[in-house]
Amino acid sequence: MLRLKLLCIGLTMPIFLWANDTIYDTSEQSFNIDSLWVLLCAILVFLMQAGFKTLETGLVKSEHRTGVGAKNLMDMVAGMLGFFLLGYGFMFGDSLYGIIGFNTDLFAGGDLTKSGIGIPGIVFFLFQVAFAGTALTIVSGAMSGRTGLLPYLIGSLITAIIIYPVFGHWAWGNILDPTNHAWLAEIGFMDFAGSTVVHTLGATVGLVGIILVGPRLGRFDMNGKILPIKASDYSYSILGVILLWVGWWGFNGGSTLTFGNDVYTIILNTNVAGAASCFSAFIFCYFFQDRTELIEKMAGGALTGLVAITACCNVVSPSSALIIGLLAGIIHNLSFDLILKVLKFDDPVGAIPVHGFGGIFGTLCVALFGKEELLMLPRWEQLLVQAIGVEVCIAFTVLVSFIMFKTIKSLYGLRVSPEQELGGMMAGRKMPKDFYEKEGEKKIQYASIKVSGKGYNLINIKNFIDLSKSYRDGLIQNERVAFIDAGGEKVNIEESLRQLSVLKESSLKNEPLMHA
Amino acid sequence: MLRLKLLCIGLTMPIFLWANDTIYDTSEQSFNIDSLWVLLCAILVFLMQAGFKTLETGLVKSEHRTGVGAKNLMDMVAGMLGFFLLGYGFMFGDSLYGIIGFNTDLFAGGDLTKSGIGIPGIVFFLFQVAFAGTALTIVSGAMSGRTGLLPYLIGSLITAIIIYPVFGHWAWGNILDPTNHAWLAEIGFMDFAGSTVVHTLGATVGLVGIILVGPRLGRFDMNGKILPIKASDYSYSILGVILLWVGWWGFNGGSTLTFGNDVYTIILNTNVAGAASCFSAFIFCYFFQDRTELIEKMAGGALTGLVAITACCNVVSPSSALIIGLLAGIIHNLSFDLILKVLKFDDPVGAIPVHGFGGIFGTLCVALFGKEELLMLPRWEQLLVQAIGVEVCIAFTVLVSFIMFKTIKSLYGLRVSPEQELGGMMAGRKMPKDFYEKEGEKKIQYASIKVSGKGYNLINIKNFIDLSKSYRDGLIQNERVAFIDAGGEKVNIEESLRQLSVLKESSLKNEPLMHA
Amino acid sequence: MLRLKLLCIGLTMPIFLWANDTIYDTSEQSFNIDSLWVLLCAILVFLMQAGFKTLETGLVKSEHRTGVGAKNLMDMVAGMLGFFLLGYGFMFGDSLYGIIGFNTDLFAGGDLTKSGIGIPGIVFFLFQVAFAGTALTIVSGAMSGRTGLLPYLIGSLITAIIIYPVFGHWAWGNILDPTNHAWLAEIGFMDFAGSTVVHTLGATVGLVGIILVGPRLGRFDMNGKILPIKASDYSYSILGVILLWVGWWGFNGGSTLTFGNDVYTIILNTNVAGAASCFSAFIFCYFFQDRTELIEKMAGGALTGLVAITACCNVVSPSSALIIGLLAGIIHNLSFDLILKVLKFDDPVGAIPVHGFGGIFGTLCVALFGKEELLMLPRWEQLLVQAIGVEVCIAFTVLVSFIMFKTIKSLYGLRVSPEQELGGMMAGRKMPKDFYEKEGEKKIQYASIKVSGKGYNLINIKNFIDLSKSYRDGLIQNERVAFIDAGGEKVNIEESLRQLSVLKESSLKNEPLMHA
Repeated sequence: MLRLKLLCIGLTMPIFLWANDTIYDTSEQSFNIDSLWVLLCAILVFLMQAGFKTLETGLVKSEHRTGVGAKNLMDMVAGMLGFFLLGYGFMFGDSLYGIIGFNTDLFAGGDLTKSGIGIPGIVFFLFQVAFAGTALTIVSGAMSGRTGLLPYLIGSLITAIIIYPVFGHWAWGNILDPTNHAWLAEIGFMDFAGSTVVHTLGATVGLVGIILVGPRLGRFDMNGKILPIKASDYSYSILGVILLWVGWWGFNGGSTLTFGNDVYTIILNTNVAGAASCFSAFIFCYFFQDRTELIEKMAGGALTGLVAITACCNVVSPSSALIIGLLAGIIHNLSFDLILKVLKFDDPVGAIPVHGFGGIFGTLCVALFGKEELLMLPRWEQLLVQAIGVEVCIAFTVLVSFIMFKTIKSLYGLRVSPEQELGGMMAGRKMPKDFYEKEGEKKIQYASIKVSGKGYNLINIKNFIDLSKSYRDGLIQNERVAFIDAGGEKVNIEESLRQLSVLKESSLKNEPLMHA
Repeated sequence: MLRLKLLCIGLTMPIFLWANDTIYDTSEQSFNIDSLWVLLCAILVFLMQAGFKTLETGLVKSEHRTGVGAKNLMDMVAGMLGFFLLGYGFMFGDSLYGIIGFNTDLFAGGDLTKSGIGIPGIVFFLFQVAFAGTALTIVSGAMSGRTGLLPYLIGSLITAIIIYPVFGHWAWGNILDPTNHAWLAEIGFMDFAGSTVVHTLGATVGLVGIILVGPRLGRFDMNGKILPIKASDYSYSILGVILLWVGWWGFNGGSTLTFGNDVYTIILNTNVAGAASCFSAFIFCYFFQDRTELIEKMAGGALTGLVAITACCNVVSPSSALIIGLLAGIIHNLSFDLILKVLKFDDPVGAIPVHGFGGIFGTLCVALFGKEELLMLPRWEQLLVQAIGVEVCIAFTVLVSFIMFKTIKSLYGLRVSPEQELGGMMAGRKMPKDFYEKEGEKKIQYASIKVSGKGYNLINIKNFIDLSKSYRDGLIQNERVAFIDAGGEKVNIEESLRQLSVLKESSLKNEPLMHA
Repeated sequence: MLRLKLLCIGLTMPIFLWANDTIYDTSEQSFNIDSLWVLLCAILVFLMQAGFKTLETGLVKSEHRTGVGAKNLMDMVAGMLGFFLLGYGFMFGDSLYGIIGFNTDLFAGGDLTKSGIGIPGIVFFLFQVAFAGTALTIVSGAMSGRTGLLPYLIGSLITAIIIYPVFGHWAWGNILDPTNHAWLAEIGFMDFAGSTVVHTLGATVGLVGIILVGPRLGRFDMNGKILPIKASDYSYSILGVILLWVGWWGFNGGSTLTFGNDVYTIILNTNVAGAASCFSAFIFCYFFQDRTELIEKMAGGALTGLVAITACCNVVSPSSALIIGLLAGIIHNLSFDLILKVLKFDDPVGAIPVHGFGGIFGTLCVALFGKEELLMLPRWEQLLVQAIGVEVCIAFTVLVSFIMFKTIKSLYGLRVSPEQELGGMMAGRKMPKDFYEKEGEKKIQYASIKVSGKGYNLINIKNFIDLSKSYRDGLIQNERVAFIDAGGEKVNIEESLRQLSVLKESSLKNEPLMHA
């Protein structure tokens, strides 16, 4: 091999070899075919970044296109760097008490060549780093439109270094070294290509982020009623769905880490589930739901089927995949409405229904639809273990990501100022020098009103003054309102009330209150 | 193999294997290389869905972007489901009297593993289902802007289950099982990767759809004069051309179903023809045609060369490919003008010139440019057989798709209402609950005027009243006009004339007739 | 092989083979794996055309989207045709005195099958033609927004036939036939995948084009101050970055021309450098530069790291790749400001900082960061040779592309008329019949003012008249101003002064001069 390498170098570039130098013996050959397949799949999974970017960009408001695009690029970079430097070693390194991996060879690409599996260690890294990137990018859509770029970048780095690798270690930590303890894998938890490890985890980080950053301005009115938000370009989102779908051939197909007969069935199942899910989401929305969200339902429906089949595509038959897909579409549509209309979470791209509900459903489908002989445990025990895996994932991820976002929020702030949000400024297009710097003046400009306890809504202070006195006073006394200056900072209540009385007078002078 | 499978399952997921387990004997190895190639090509053909979506979205009016995107996703899903459930078995199953295949193993993925060819049956299915999707999606562009989503979905399903598989059975039905009778193949019809089977067939379905659904509002004025229509984003369409071009490497390169030396020449020919065709279309338009359609001509020109080389890329030399491409560009430009300016068909994305004319030309090029020793028959006999294949395809497709669309039209309607069309409502964005429900009132709002007998044009009733009395009366007496209410329903002629007289009076009162 | 081929043909299409026919012996097998890998990489490099198109389209003004898209398609076609017909033979044919290759077998695909390397000759051609296309398309962005489509096409053809192949012959001319003299390769110049051969060369052609075509209208005011230009869609550009990044897996990974262990490290290095570069460009801009260009810096930063690692990805460790990336991001940001703000070149998409500075830096990194045992020469000698290679590339390319663009400019004109530029007419959308025809009247409408000697700026003649008399006279006496009619033609100075005096009077009458 050394001789080969020296020869390579000896011939200027591009390095070339004569045919007689590239004859491997048969065993190295098959090594290569598996490597080529997994590498191709890594490329496809990487291409999913383009799919996510496109999907999300099309679904947000025009002024937030740039911001969500920038976040997609940023989390791709953060995932690559964080996972390369530390995350990969934490996920696949030698297990410390089953909690976290640790292997200096795997940090910062120290020595990725060692591999107990049938493909080179670097190919495995490339495939895994693309997976990590997928988990991260789910968050970008969920928090889009109001989250600052720098806090988002910090959150992405922490997710790539801590959250994803630690849970990943529990479920998949024994792949690279089978002697490792990966406790979820050891109790029989099955998540073939990551319905839970990638999708539910990503969606859970996103959900915590959504709650902590609050809804976009103009998502709800002050009574919690949903206001219409115009997607910037639905058609662009459909391009995203197709690109993601293509990427899924590799996402699931590469997870065997070998190019055997299983691959074909896995890809067939993936496609059948995606198509069935898109179909059922369309039909269900068309005939039983509000058609104004038909495109969101179709697009998200397709993806939910793909997410759901991810855990179980290697253990179910194509006809089961069809049923899983048909169910996934309906689950998507119902959970979409649940998140937005009942729970009043502002998830601009529908990431929670797709990756959260789809991921949970798919993980359970392993037990529900898997061929019995391919399961690790008897069916009902398997179902229990699958449920445990999902719950552990959600509990762990909620805990750590809550601490993470809360800390970022306290130290730095998660959210851009209202001016920046309304102007689409979080992504540099119009971002001023003093992007996150506090402004000196504390003149209140917005009232932030809690909505059903689940989020809040900002309204212009003039609209607040226009409310009836009793409603206003009720909000203030129940601490359901906070006052915010132009920079997004809270103004303390005494100062607010003082300003409010002045504002009200001037308001009264200029335009008589109609609602009072 | 069973041992391998069990081993796979025994080790949690992602399943992994040690190098010594993945050593195949040499014959299985080559099996794998061919499989990997065809699978890669299936991925590329699948990616063409993104290309079609992007191409078509850019060429339609802004308000129809969402609609055409949704149709692209819908036909991808319909193709996948329809072909999986029934179409594949009808196309490649055991031949019933040479008319249609029938094989329960091939329905709903019953047992796709059996294969007499050098690649696994599932890989062949994945490649073929991607082909079916291509044929279907050609229709979406042709009918875009005025066709309802649900009738379109139904049409796609029928095309995927009946039209494409039946004609496909005649031309390619003996591929999976060489003992099958595929009568066109048996008389020597050569269509390597589907210039006729995929492209001409898709274009023919589109053409019948175009005629039955009629032109978009505002495409022609009431004298049949072409009115300008602003493409939403030409640049986006060019992205589509590039994506389609990339996909074509797989479309043609994978059709050998093996990774041998032929593949390289095929891909070279494909690229040369595409480039030559784009070049000649550009030059021809630039110097000899109206430059206002330069982008349409460039984009469509490139694709026409790719369509044309599809049938013959395995039997012609690169220099012949160059000539075929140069001719294809000119054929595109001339047929583009023929369709739009002479025949007055409203084909918003130029699908007929590209896939119809390009497909026919390419199929004939097999005989015209193919190396004699690679043809099935002597050159002129071959040409005759090629022409027969094309004619059979068109005749069969016209017949069945006419019955199909006519039936959908009678039972359900093909077209959205004028309000929905003008507002881009067929895709859910603004789609009301009563999308296809008939409205109670029958007030006439539009006059639908037959244009040169080939389609019709809707104008606002006020503009109709502004016509000179003799012209109006001529239209009514010759039954060249129908009156339409806001919901798109025809109003019977007596009621129309009654309303018309009222309208005319009120119109006269408000604004004196200038043209009368 | 002949037997195989005849068999292929004998079985209608798609040609298929039984498993027993496709069993190759082991050596042919490895041949195939390498071929498959390089072919896959060619596809990925070809996909970079979509990336460039998308990147550039998003960064230009809305009215220039179509134009830059059309140029991207045009140079892809020109590259394919020019390289196929002549360029490939000039680059890889038998060396004539070390200056240019010449081999009739390689012209027009005469006989591409012969190959002394481990992959089929046609696969090598496909990979190389995709590289040529990359070099060409760099120019489209640099010159976008004001260059005519036809002169651009002519320039692309010449670049594909002469400039790229000749320099390429010097650096890479011995790849296909090791007995060839490629003088730069022979003195030890190392440019693995083309930081210099592809990127610096492309950027240099672009730079010469930028200087000769001049800045876009409205880029600078008459004092050379930079005016804001609104990118059409930053988010679309980010899609381009991701697509390019995906393509780079093939661009660098395929340049080994074999699928060995080097491939994995190369791809790892590529990704690490790209991520590090995007990260450092973001951080550097965020904290030390003007954030209004944050997206340009992020996007261009990522690409600069990818360009830089291109020359050296096969000789550096992953940790060196990290450092190269971190430096590349900062180099990008500084050179971005240098080009735009100091040198006042109007490079609408930042092609020069990315491909020029990134390419030079990467070529030097071979010597600076390469593992000593993998270099051709001792480190400092290597550095010298690398610098020589870069300088030769720039000097040669400047010379030939200057002659090329100057000739096109004299014979035909490079630039569209101001009306066409402002209306986005260079791409056919609104292009009139008399696109490049000279207009009869010579009424001055614009004053073209030299900006710091490096370019010029067009302002409306009315604004020129509004300048103070002394400033105007200074410009005229120092020959810093020329007068231009509506068609973009220069009006001679006597006629201009005559018209100017009339204009000034009428201007004085209509609106009193405020600034005079």
